[in-house]
Amino acid sequence: MSPIRIGIIGLSPGAWAANAHLPYLQSSGSKFKIVAVCNSSVESAAKSAKDLGLAEGVRTYGNVQDIADDKDVDLVVCTTRVDRHYTSILPSLKTGKDVFVEWPLGRNLEEAKELLNVAKQNNVKLTAVGLQGRFEATVETLKSVLSEGRIGKVLSTTITSQGVIGGPTESETQTYLTDRTHGASVLTIPTLHLLDTVLEVLGEFSSVQSLLSNQRPVVKIVQADGSVVKDNVEKTSPDHVMIQGTLKSGAVLSATVRGGAPFKGTPGLEWRIYGEKGEIRITGAHACIEIVGTTSFELHSFDTDEVENIELEKGTFAEMAPITRNVARIYEAIAAGDKSVLCDFKDAVERHEFIENVYDQNPSF
Amino acid sequence: MSPIRIGIIGLSPGAWAANAHLPYLQSSGSKFKIVAVCNSSVESAAKSAKDLGLAEGVRTYGNVQDIADDKDVDLVVCTTRVDRHYTSILPSLKTGKDVFVEWPLGRNLEEAKELLNVAKQNNVKLTAVGLQGRFEATVETLKSVLSEGRIGKVLSTTITSQGVIGGPTESETQTYLTDRTHGASVLTIPTLHLLDTVLEVLGEFSSVQSLLSNQRPVVKIVQADGSVVKDNVEKTSPDHVMIQGTLKSGAVLSATVRGGAPFKGTPGLEWRIYGEKGEIRITGAHACIEIVGTTSFELHSFDTDEVENIELEKGTFAEMAPITRNVARIYEAIAAGDKSVLCDFKDAVERHEFIENVYDQNPSF
Repeated sequence: MSPIRIGIIGLSPGAWAANAHLPYLQSSGSKFKIVAVCNSSVESAAKSAKDLGLAEGVRTYGNVQDIADDKDVDLVVCTTRVDRHYTSILPSLKTGKDVFVEWPLGRNLEEAKELLNVAKQNNVKLTAVGLQGRFEATVETLKSVLSEGRIGKVLSTTITSQGVIGGPTESETQTYLTDRTHGASVLTIPTLHLLDTVLEVLGEFSSVQSLLSNQRPVVKIVQADGSVVKDNVEKTSPDHVMIQGTLKSGAVLSATVRGGAPFKGTPGLEWRIYGEKGEIRITGAHACIEIVGTTSFELHSFDTDEVENIELEKGTFAEMAPITRNVARIYEAIAAGDKSVLCDFKDAVERHEFIENVYDQNPSF
Repeated sequence: MSPIRIGIIGLSPGAWAANAHLPYLQSSGSKFKIVAVCNSSVESAAKSAKDLGLAEGVRTYGNVQDIADDKDVDLVVCTTRVDRHYTSILPSLKTGKDVFVEWPLGRNLEEAKELLNVAKQNNVKLTAVGLQGRFEATVETLKSVLSEGRIGKVLSTTITSQGVIGGPTESETQTYLTDRTHGASVLTIPTLHLLDTVLEVLGEFSSVQSLLSNQRPVVKIVQADGSVVKDNVEKTSPDHVMIQGTLKSGAVLSATVRGGAPFKGTPGLEWRIYGEKGEIRITGAHACIEIVGTTSFELHSFDTDEVENIELEKGTFAEMAPITRNVARIYEAIAAGDKSVLCDFKDAVERHEFIENVYDQNPSF
């Protein structure tokens, strides 16, 4: 089978796509071939292509219409920051191209719905959204352990976590996170990725209560070395997200995600699943397990009163780090046309509806 | 000063009052003297008085009216199970006696309000309720650390805990816990004690969202050795309590308390207080810190990125275990007429109003 030809929008050394997408795309097993790169300018695209060692002859664009018009591109991959997703992929959807875009799909529900509609109107065959946490090895392992009845019926789940972004400072490369209207915040990124992963294992909500808070309405913008670039920058994004609700299974859920770093020396993520016959405790570095995976997976059996360490079933791409492996699995699902786990635009709109519902419950945002 | 003369309702070896109240009352420093004991029968009262080494001549009653009528009793202490508080103390309030009763004050808001009214109508000078967690050394230490500005302004607090009761089994001595109408459950006991302690440090709620769930509607009743006395006993009490809300200070709170034992090898209580400049992490054996205290108190300073272990300021009765020390402090507050921390019937009615509000938010209970 000939490789699927990709055009990537938003590719530069050191940034997300280079770290998360390229290791798979440039591997010998890749079912894809990068044929075009589109950045803010042709020069920038050409520099990225060269610096990242893409094949000679890769096309370089500075305008998203050009990638949409390129007949040799089968799949457009959009890895720009979220507030540019809409304008970046709209032309490609209008020409009927398959699109794979990072989560969140749009800045808000309205953009997400419109993108879904445009895709439908133009008979786009495949839409994919980067909610890759649902492909994480932790999820696969959990599904096995639960289906084996190891903890019996699930009664509740409790999650406490830190979202890395949304602390006392934001990086100067991510100042757009401070403005809630850009659609990138502790709510839409760490919380939503994490909840999507949890719900993939435990099923969807039947009812939700939420509490959003912006406890640090003024933050510092810092460089990579920590030095302050700008002080007293207004922030309108939430930095605390508290969610509790009932799942369709009848189990109850409590999740809290706050911005900033974990309490030093403790896991930045603790995810408990409490069952009739046992409890699972999963820890990780922080809320974004789609990027960093998890660090421990234990099962406390009430029958034996013993705690067992569970080995993760790493499955495909076991040799890769979670940041790469989970994106690789999205690419493989796209190549195989396997929509069983893959998030499409319709699923993504449902996740945006969840976010909209949370905002509706918190009218000060 | 001559000692305050106490009549205790509900005293037997091995039970709560003997463990939590007697060590102070029988200590050389006690400002109280037990002059009467009232149990379900005179014989039972007499046996307890003897077995527990009370002074010769202590009066023994089998009827709560008798203790109410005893002119030599200055203060009636009620340590029965909650569903018997109302009938136990009503006669004493009607005769204008001071009363100290364990929390919860009544089975429900209605009983609590009526007891408050009867106390008012009969000019009862002192009413006290056993919310002793607010006297805990952890609270005293927290108040110091916060007032010194060690973590700056408090932004949020997150609590995950296990409530011991409300698990797969209940003890045969506590089968009344299974019936919500008795007023003793994971909500009214571990959760309310814990929240009362938290609010003593961080101030009251301005708004609350709650989720109650009874995930184990059928439980086993067991003996102390774990052997099953009765299977398939219906339970109507909640075994999961999830609370999130905003405090008057503007900080946000998330608390989850589930029934049953902790995940083996992990703290059954983790209480974080996240501030502008640092975070506090307190751990304990389980939710009931009024009984067991806490086991670690750490402070992560964001300025230095160091974690410091904070020594508890044990204050008065430092030599006693938390279960005894915190009750001793209630007695001392009663003796001194110091109402600054002491919970009176009016405060207790406010706590019952909180519980009633939670039930109102959860109409299936």
